[in-house]
Amino acid sequence: MAKRDSVLTRIVRIYETFGPDTPALRVTDIARRAELHVATASRLVDELVGHGWLHRDPDRRIRVGVRLWELASRASPTLGLREAAMPFMEDLHAVVGHHTQLAVLEDREVLFVERLSAPGAVVNVTRVAGRLPLHASSSGLVLLAHAPVDLQEQVLSGPLEAFRRTTLTDPARLRRFLADVRRNGYAFCAGFIDEETTGIAVPLRGRGDTVVAALSVIVPNDRNARMQIPALRAAARGISRMLSH
Amino acid sequence: MAKRDSVLTRIVRIYETFGPDTPALRVTDIARRAELHVATASRLVDELVGHGWLHRDPDRRIRVGVRLWELASRASPTLGLREAAMPFMEDLHAVVGHHTQLAVLEDREVLFVERLSAPGAVVNVTRVAGRLPLHASSSGLVLLAHAPVDLQEQVLSGPLEAFRRTTLTDPARLRRFLADVRRNGYAFCAGFIDEETTGIAVPLRGRGDTVVAALSVIVPNDRNARMQIPALRAAARGISRMLSH
Repeated sequence: MAKRDSVLTRIVRIYETFGPDTPALRVTDIARRAELHVATASRLVDELVGHGWLHRDPDRRIRVGVRLWELASRASPTLGLREAAMPFMEDLHAVVGHHTQLAVLEDREVLFVERLSAPGAVVNVTRVAGRLPLHASSSGLVLLAHAPVDLQEQVLSGPLEAFRRTTLTDPARLRRFLADVRRNGYAFCAGFIDEETTGIAVPLRGRGDTVVAALSVIVPNDRNARMQIPALRAAARGISRMLSH
Repeated sequence: MAKRDSVLTRIVRIYETFGPDTPALRVTDIARRAELHVATASRLVDELVGHGWLHRDPDRRIRVGVRLWELASRASPTLGLREAAMPFMEDLHAVVGHHTQLAVLEDREVLFVERLSAPGAVVNVTRVAGRLPLHASSSGLVLLAHAPVDLQEQVLSGPLEAFRRTTLTDPARLRRFLADVRRNGYAFCAGFIDEETTGIAVPLRGRGDTVVAALSVIVPNDRNARMQIPALRAAARGISRMLSH
């Protein structure tokens, strides 16, 4: 029990107990996961429910409140990016017919901020507001290739977790891959996360030509996968034009 | 200055200063808008920046942090609704070619939780995480028509703001309109918010056939508008089937 934490730190810990697999929790579970006294958790939860930042179901389980989602979304730093990208993402998704995703660099990880999916599309481990390590996914490799050099060196010198046999865990190989991404303008990752799928990602550029996000598609791992690259690059040019206005 | 407010109340007030038109603010502006001492606002902003819940730009202006958006989104109570609706919304949007929207009832208002738009689509006053009064929009009228009777009576007995000549501000007319929505299965609102556009909304049903959201399209206000109703109703049936599983 950390009694000297600030109220905000406790609130942050309460929100960190929720996720896609735990959208609703009892107060006792929140207290245990957030390492708070039940009385403390209960008092803070009551206050957060009062503001609509948390929601209490009829069965007394607690969820993230719609009001917090609304406040976070209506002024979200990625709102402009998502609004610029969506029309192009929809066209790309209609043509490619598989998952089409938008991701940003956040805390040395890839954060997916938008995704279009169709029923029957290939397996995809990501979801909106989900994360992946930079070195393991096509979006992450694009963002890493264009990240500041000190971030690249941190990732290259740190442990590189293997997801599959194909994951780039050797720093020298990863360094060459990143140079290829910068030269080719895309990351092509056949079977990197799932044997059946290929991730392809391209950079999106904002003002001053800075890479601000990655656009990607997840398609079947077959000989047609490379055919999607031109459509992806064309969509990225359109979005980048909107972003640099 | 409200000195006796809890830390959480002050934090809530800080977030309420941000919106689509004010995505970035100086600390002094936040203090003024949130009615806090600059020192108090400054200390709380520093702590929120430390947790990634707020972000400080290089020019020292403050924005909502990506981390807060991520926490709110990944466990958002509307996440399941949005995931179930999106594939059908994309098909509908491809066919209709204009704004396609998903909205829920929140605090006696319509809250838009998803929107697909195309460049060149008709004027639309809503945006993701934006709100509209229940009596003024097609989505709001669908949600109101299926809301608990006491909420309907509160809205019918309260002031009904006129947006245009066509806004339903007469309680008796509004009551008849809501009965028509329930009988017909849709709200058809030609020129209610903008003379040039027609909003059409249908209910989405979850478990136990409860109306949980509204699906809507905003199309040009012409003789073709009614043609969109069957496609909208078919999409709503598909989404409702997913939601009631």
